[in-house]
Amino acid sequence: PSGTEVFDWKIPKEWNIKNAYIITPNGDKICDFQECNLHIVNYATPIDKEIEYEELKNHLFYLKNQPNSIPYITSYYEESWGFCLSYNEFLKLPKQGNYRVVIESTLEQGNLTYGDYILKGESEEEILFTTYVCHPSMAINELSGPLVTAFLYEKLAQLKHRKYTYRFVFAPETIGHIAYLAKNGEKLKKHTIAGYVITCVGHDGKFTYKKSKQDNSLADRAAQHVLKYSGADYNVFPFSIGGSDERQYCSPGFNLPIGSLMRTPYKEYKEYHTSDDNKNIMSFKALESTVVMYETICSVLELNKKHERVNPYCELQLGKRGLYENIGAWTKRDDFIMDLLHFLAHIDGNTDLIEIAERKNKSVLLFSDIVNVCKDKKLLK
Amino acid sequence: PSGTEVFDWKIPKEWNIKNAYIITPNGDKICDFQECNLHIVNYATPIDKEIEYEELKNHLFYLKNQPNSIPYITSYYEESWGFCLSYNEFLKLPKQGNYRVVIESTLEQGNLTYGDYILKGESEEEILFTTYVCHPSMAINELSGPLVTAFLYEKLAQLKHRKYTYRFVFAPETIGHIAYLAKNGEKLKKHTIAGYVITCVGHDGKFTYKKSKQDNSLADRAAQHVLKYSGADYNVFPFSIGGSDERQYCSPGFNLPIGSLMRTPYKEYKEYHTSDDNKNIMSFKALESTVVMYETICSVLELNKKHERVNPYCELQLGKRGLYENIGAWTKRDDFIMDLLHFLAHIDGNTDLIEIAERKNKSVLLFSDIVNVCKDKKLLK
Amino acid sequence: PSGTEVFDWKIPKEWNIKNAYIITPNGDKICDFQECNLHIVNYATPIDKEIEYEELKNHLFYLKNQPNSIPYITSYYEESWGFCLSYNEFLKLPKQGNYRVVIESTLEQGNLTYGDYILKGESEEEILFTTYVCHPSMAINELSGPLVTAFLYEKLAQLKHRKYTYRFVFAPETIGHIAYLAKNGEKLKKHTIAGYVITCVGHDGKFTYKKSKQDNSLADRAAQHVLKYSGADYNVFPFSIGGSDERQYCSPGFNLPIGSLMRTPYKEYKEYHTSDDNKNIMSFKALESTVVMYETICSVLELNKKHERVNPYCELQLGKRGLYENIGAWTKRDDFIMDLLHFLAHIDGNTDLIEIAERKNKSVLLFSDIVNVCKDKKLLK
Repeated sequence: PSGTEVFDWKIPKEWNIKNAYIITPNGDKICDFQECNLHIVNYATPIDKEIEYEELKNHLFYLKNQPNSIPYITSYYEESWGFCLSYNEFLKLPKQGNYRVVIESTLEQGNLTYGDYILKGESEEEILFTTYVCHPSMAINELSGPLVTAFLYEKLAQLKHRKYTYRFVFAPETIGHIAYLAKNGEKLKKHTIAGYVITCVGHDGKFTYKKSKQDNSLADRAAQHVLKYSGADYNVFPFSIGGSDERQYCSPGFNLPIGSLMRTPYKEYKEYHTSDDNKNIMSFKALESTVVMYETICSVLELNKKHERVNPYCELQLGKRGLYENIGAWTKRDDFIMDLLHFLAHIDGNTDLIEIAERKNKSVLLFSDIVNVCKDKKLLK
Repeated sequence: PSGTEVFDWKIPKEWNIKNAYIITPNGDKICDFQECNLHIVNYATPIDKEIEYEELKNHLFYLKNQPNSIPYITSYYEESWGFCLSYNEFLKLPKQGNYRVVIESTLEQGNLTYGDYILKGESEEEILFTTYVCHPSMAINELSGPLVTAFLYEKLAQLKHRKYTYRFVFAPETIGHIAYLAKNGEKLKKHTIAGYVITCVGHDGKFTYKKSKQDNSLADRAAQHVLKYSGADYNVFPFSIGGSDERQYCSPGFNLPIGSLMRTPYKEYKEYHTSDDNKNIMSFKALESTVVMYETICSVLELNKKHERVNPYCELQLGKRGLYENIGAWTKRDDFIMDLLHFLAHIDGNTDLIEIAERKNKSVLLFSDIVNVCKDKKLLK
Repeated sequence: PSGTEVFDWKIPKEWNIKNAYIITPNGDKICDFQECNLHIVNYATPIDKEIEYEELKNHLFYLKNQPNSIPYITSYYEESWGFCLSYNEFLKLPKQGNYRVVIESTLEQGNLTYGDYILKGESEEEILFTTYVCHPSMAINELSGPLVTAFLYEKLAQLKHRKYTYRFVFAPETIGHIAYLAKNGEKLKKHTIAGYVITCVGHDGKFTYKKSKQDNSLADRAAQHVLKYSGADYNVFPFSIGGSDERQYCSPGFNLPIGSLMRTPYKEYKEYHTSDDNKNIMSFKALESTVVMYETICSVLELNKKHERVNPYCELQLGKRGLYENIGAWTKRDDFIMDLLHFLAHIDGNTDLIEIAERKNKSVLLFSDIVNVCKDKKLLK
């Protein structure tokens, strides 16, 4: 509910809007909410009034450097009204005569809405995916995030077996996730082993991984491992506050192992936070390949474990278990056997599979069959 | 004894062979054990029978890519028989007529034989050298190993004083060392501070150091220290399972500080595991210089210690102990004095001599006199 | 007092000198103490005697490679006498006839004199500056040290508020500081959080930072942080015994976090320890800029802290505290806000400000206002 205190913040009033526009002295209807909802400053107070150009001017927002784009402007914590329009449109406005400005909005006691969903796994340990839903009329930032998160959910829901529990959080950026943490933060601190903020995942081109503040958390190791063996181009950056809800999840009181796998991130593309961030620049192939990359990260996390042998002494005799050709030269050992021996030589209960796989410069995924064979043969504790 | 369980393995029957050969349909005697023992598959079951080419073919081993070499083949854990010959010889065999195959071998209840020898030192702490003795008719791999180990033993036995106890183990590869560890593993875990698998030490050219699985064990530090200041060319590789008995000594249940200082290692030379691995490619100079390198490693280990000063405060006054020219400029201090001061400035009971020497980018051996002088002057605890 | 035992040393007799010279067979007065005090071997015993050239020769010191320079020679721990002169002057000496040598010195029971001064701060934790005063007639080594130390004292004494207590020690090199540590060492061990030996600070050109033996002490981190963001050229070297009183302060029994920020260090300039190390090669600008660099190090140490938030959960709402423009795009956040958010995101009670600033590749000094604002707003524990 509005007014609820959530850590340092208070849930603001609920904003709803039906319509908004400006009638120019020439009678033209501009900044029409029905045409583009970016025309109205988010969280604008209601108004219906005739005013002169000089007054109106102070309530108009535009971008001189991107003269054809409507900017995305918000005013969450200071009650005011305003319109956004392209700089070219702004230049055409008559400087004389009366303008009628209409905003049919309400700012009332209401609720902040968020959603989460839990896919139960065998363990109480959780993998967290969060995304934000406050300005989904823009494509890359932000609709791509909820889309990829929803498709990832679909994929993970189909798994017959999940070692870990998966938590998906959809909430407005900042205040929404602060509210979520106010309710669930202690639980998340207890259970979350890795997690990711899903945002800016709609561009083709390089992947960008932004590390958690822990800098070498399981989330970071798994994501970088997958990227390394994916064949894809990618960059890795350290945690920084210029970002999204990792600012909340990695704040000192939580410091969760939450990174963010993106494509071209915020502010690195010129259409960011304008009307040009629309489906023309979003690639469905990019969305899909990002879902696959996150899925692969989950596979790696599911496989990753500090395995331990039942009999930890010396090599195990593979021949008597049908795993080894008993006659022949050493050179005939194939990759599978070599990987199996590597695995059995390194599992000591302290070293996880990501580390073991990287010592052989291979993907964890290539060890999946090996782990299964070892389980079948009852070699693992 | 055969049948004894050693960890995951069972000691196999004892194999002995008196003679073996094939008589071709032309009456030629080929694959004659008396000429070259590689002609017979190691551990081959006895046979004396006339068979046709088509059947014989399945029991013949050769290398198409090395058409003049007889390969080395074993069948320890599956009872079968076979002969090895060069591919060129194979091509000459008549495809018609009867062959007589004779293997006069026995596979009987017997014993696995290994040897160890302990050179006692002042301390119960041990330095381990292991080598294997199962196919010494090949030169680099494996006769060079037992040769260097034996000569190293000779050298160390002559020392008047040994701080550490030295253990030398000669056993068949894999099963022999597994058996050895089954009997002595817990003792080795308790006492071994460093050790090395001695194999492939017969080539001239670069040294190759393969690290223990611990990756920065005392064995690794001492070997790399010696190589660094030896002036010799060398490579260093991490632990991997493609190797020799370090697979047993570094297995999770033991994880001993055991590396391996080699010259050209297994599989990096084409004669490996063939009749071409003979004295033509072995260098006695290489054997000798490897003995020297291992000896030097022992000297470094003997010298290495976390020394501590009786009086740890400030510099010590060298002049009153006759160690320092009392008149003159600072620039007149010679190397010995500078190294002595460096040593006295760094010994804090926590930092070992290898570390202290490397901080001055010098060999530990150059500090030998300094340690003695300090002992004489009663400066050390 | 002379004769006092200080660790491994004994305070020597006190040396005083009124006059000294040589009268040549020609009646010329050379090596005149009144002209240059370097002419007399430091700590020379008194003498007044006629001797021949052959005997005199053994008591003369000169530098063949620097034929115009008078060397600086001492004989603290062996009683003897001698004169120093330029090699060119030496060559001119008549080889026949009697020389009269006169040294009017005393070597008597006396005192070793040192001075220290404490600038009290809020905390008992101390920052130490030491310099030496035994041959101040040479400029770079050593007068520049006491000069910079004295000016640094002036600057720090003017501060209205000091978090830390500052200790300044002026003493003869080696024996003086050993004596100081004999009396104050345990106190220093308890309180010193960082410190520096101030010497060789009179040259223009590059700064040289020599690290404490701890290698990554607070002293080292602060000095390197300041140098990194100073824009100045500099080198960094590890601890070594070729230096000054860090040999005492970093000796095993103390191992204090004491480094040394110099300009061109000892022995790297040819005038070192000769009469050419005089005001002609000393730069007052260099002295001044070194004072500033040390002052800046103090500022960094004063600012550095492991801060902790009162409310560590999520971002803090800056808007309600007047720290944030409530309307506008994310891109409008200015540097101050971004640094403030960075600071608030990283202070977790375990990470100090130097580390936090370096994660943003900025100087700690840029966070000074931010810390103050956070204190004003009661955001910090």
